[in-house]
Amino acid sequence: MRNASPALDPDLIDRFAAIVGARYALTDPAAIAPYLEEKRGLWHGRTALVLRPGSVEEVSRVMRLASETGTPVVPQSGNTGLVGAQVPDASGRAIVLSLSRLNRIREIDTLSNTVTVEAGVILQTLQEAADAADRLFPLSLAAQGSCQLGGNLSSNAGGTGVLAYGNARELCLGVEVVLPTGEVFDDLRKLKKDNTGYDLKNLFVGAEGTLGVITAAVMKLFPKPKGREVAFAGLNSPEAALALFSLAMDSVGTALTAFELIGARPYDFTLRHAAGVTRPLAQDWPWYVLMQVSSGRSAEDARGLIEDVLGAGLERDIVGDAVIAASLAQQEAFWNFREVLPDAQKPEGASIKHDISVPIASIPAFIEEAERAVQGVSPGARVVCFGHMGDGNLHYNISRPENGEDAAFLDLYKPMNKAVHDVVRAFDGSISAEHGIGQLKRDELIATAPPMAIDLMRRVKAAFDPAGVMNPGRVI
Amino acid sequence: MRNASPALDPDLIDRFAAIVGARYALTDPAAIAPYLEEKRGLWHGRTALVLRPGSVEEVSRVMRLASETGTPVVPQSGNTGLVGAQVPDASGRAIVLSLSRLNRIREIDTLSNTVTVEAGVILQTLQEAADAADRLFPLSLAAQGSCQLGGNLSSNAGGTGVLAYGNARELCLGVEVVLPTGEVFDDLRKLKKDNTGYDLKNLFVGAEGTLGVITAAVMKLFPKPKGREVAFAGLNSPEAALALFSLAMDSVGTALTAFELIGARPYDFTLRHAAGVTRPLAQDWPWYVLMQVSSGRSAEDARGLIEDVLGAGLERDIVGDAVIAASLAQQEAFWNFREVLPDAQKPEGASIKHDISVPIASIPAFIEEAERAVQGVSPGARVVCFGHMGDGNLHYNISRPENGEDAAFLDLYKPMNKAVHDVVRAFDGSISAEHGIGQLKRDELIATAPPMAIDLMRRVKAAFDPAGVMNPGRVI
Repeated sequence: MRNASPALDPDLIDRFAAIVGARYALTDPAAIAPYLEEKRGLWHGRTALVLRPGSVEEVSRVMRLASETGTPVVPQSGNTGLVGAQVPDASGRAIVLSLSRLNRIREIDTLSNTVTVEAGVILQTLQEAADAADRLFPLSLAAQGSCQLGGNLSSNAGGTGVLAYGNARELCLGVEVVLPTGEVFDDLRKLKKDNTGYDLKNLFVGAEGTLGVITAAVMKLFPKPKGREVAFAGLNSPEAALALFSLAMDSVGTALTAFELIGARPYDFTLRHAAGVTRPLAQDWPWYVLMQVSSGRSAEDARGLIEDVLGAGLERDIVGDAVIAASLAQQEAFWNFREVLPDAQKPEGASIKHDISVPIASIPAFIEEAERAVQGVSPGARVVCFGHMGDGNLHYNISRPENGEDAAFLDLYKPMNKAVHDVVRAFDGSISAEHGIGQLKRDELIATAPPMAIDLMRRVKAAFDPAGVMNPGRVI
Repeated sequence: MRNASPALDPDLIDRFAAIVGARYALTDPAAIAPYLEEKRGLWHGRTALVLRPGSVEEVSRVMRLASETGTPVVPQSGNTGLVGAQVPDASGRAIVLSLSRLNRIREIDTLSNTVTVEAGVILQTLQEAADAADRLFPLSLAAQGSCQLGGNLSSNAGGTGVLAYGNARELCLGVEVVLPTGEVFDDLRKLKKDNTGYDLKNLFVGAEGTLGVITAAVMKLFPKPKGREVAFAGLNSPEAALALFSLAMDSVGTALTAFELIGARPYDFTLRHAAGVTRPLAQDWPWYVLMQVSSGRSAEDARGLIEDVLGAGLERDIVGDAVIAASLAQQEAFWNFREVLPDAQKPEGASIKHDISVPIASIPAFIEEAERAVQGVSPGARVVCFGHMGDGNLHYNISRPENGEDAAFLDLYKPMNKAVHDVVRAFDGSISAEHGIGQLKRDELIATAPPMAIDLMRRVKAAFDPAGVMNPGRVI
């Protein structure tokens, strides 16, 4: 519940500040500002205090004091979340708990293939540390240069590596969590198999900081691929993309490490608006696929595999045209093309975005029905569809009609969401495949999820955070 | 809490029986007997009533009545569990709820690579149905001819396929659960990505029927391997086995689909006692590895991979000797050798068993220290060590000294458990890697797990089953 109560009591601020030391207790509005702004600018929160603890012990003491005083705490790591889970509300009552100083990689175990890492470690730093140890840490997403592992786990981050390696949850073997009361739940184990009671770890992963503060985790590492090939293919339909995906899965299996679908519209927007981008294929197609194959054996092997898949696809008329990147630079250019898609949509005016998943087999039918639903809400609206097709996950974004007005289109935000999500639900899909619930989708989740699921989640929340201090108003 | 209260009230029996029909409400002691006996004969439970509902609706009505009347319910599927979770206690107060009539495979979706299956489907039936649809369902374990999927999920079953494909939890995308109150939690989704709130699914998986009754699930399917090779290798030490595992992971990665460690003693016991078993290797070795490589490409490819691994192992003196199975029949003979190991131990007299896991890198040190601990409790006791080394999971069994007495050895059950599990805990391992807690390890779990973990589990139990009717006295 938001209210207009006065900011935090100055004495309380002093008590919190004493735990982390004055230097790491930010009260100056200019110093605090970056912790309040999130990327999309949707929420404008307030706080009187940002705490930057330097140890698990300090996190524990902060939470103990918060519980004792009923002070809401909003945990934050890299502040790149897209659903407002990591920023405080406008009441000014909550404090922000930044995990960014917990930034040690505690251990890399190349025999057990694990890394023990703190919540404030930047994802890219972790990737690089694994690489230096001749291992792969496969979690990979657009924000990797600034997002941090604590947030990756709390949001169960997805990204482009999920197809072969799983999401953040599947990469996590153990967690260290500070509970709302300040007690430390140490479950930092490296075990692939452990059937000793309820799966508590997976409750904290994906809970968006509402059940406790993840301070560290044991994550899986993998052998580094010895060869990697990236191709761009042009196709006539989502059905053809699905057929190509099936073909690729059947012939190369886990060597298929990315399968991204791109509609003609985001493709065109990118050619039109993104700087330094070149056309991957000579001819235009209604749909495109960016495919990556990795081999644990050799570069030649990866080449052979991707050639086999595309050759069979061309032969069976599934694929219209295809180009395999001829160099590392061209591979990067193909990936860059995929990564700039969201930004390339901006110059086309206001947009309404959806992060959805449906069963893979339903993707073609979903795309057809969702287009109809979109046109029903806003005739002429332009569907910008792309995403991780191999995971059933589409970023189903809608740009306003070409000559429409931004404000008028954004007034349709709620009916558009509802129209698209109704189609998602009709296919037993998810209205948040990878970004989470946060503030953005909380009301919709509560209104549309099976009441039983909401009831069970509320029981979990009450059992873990009876005082309600842990990121209140998020998720549930 | 067990008590000697009278058996169930006859009126209550009638009310339960009316839900499923007289034919499926067993009250005759002879008909009930098979539901009370578990494989190891460790527990001798009682019940006045076994219910065999034929639909989710009937399960729901049974649980509603159980909640209303405070009647404890013990869910049971294939009754192959090894920790006593699926049999009632001696009080006679609990009823047994058999899921075996919920035995439909509801749907196989070969595009989404999922199968929707009810709790009473026998694992081998599910494997065969997947095979008929040209897909692999990779969960595989000794009891597969009689165990059922509900129990596989409730115990988060492991087995020989975990290394490449994960355990039951990792294979499960969605569940349908009847809660203690009779409400149905329908979360039968086929989604690889879904970040809409807390991970409830993974609470029910592995909860051994203490939070609800799993009635159906969506499970992952995989492309069928096109080639498979199985080899037996002789090695000088667990260190060498670890080096071979690292080598295999680095060179074939996910194509490594089994890596089983076998000590000389279980190897010898098998040669001595198992019928129709032939010696896999000409010479004796201190340790053996059963390794399987699967290729999604071709039989020749699998052959090339396993030859590469073993060739490199021989060249680097990691492997002493190795034989690749020359035929499907020999592959089956190698696997049979592995599968009869537990039974081949029986003629050697009483044994005390442990189902443990440690970080893979710690396996050699664990084996060394655990042997010392065992000798400290029972000088001359014979360690019978084998298991899923690639998962860090060993079945660390101890046979009595060669000329010892069974009874005297079994008197050491508790100190032996403690000695071995203390070593497990020193390596941050698990005292139940795949069999679960049930009745067998409940007291030890509560006594030795971090109090915080026990406290959190109790909060979950109280939140989901406040009346305490759901398989009470198990796990927590």
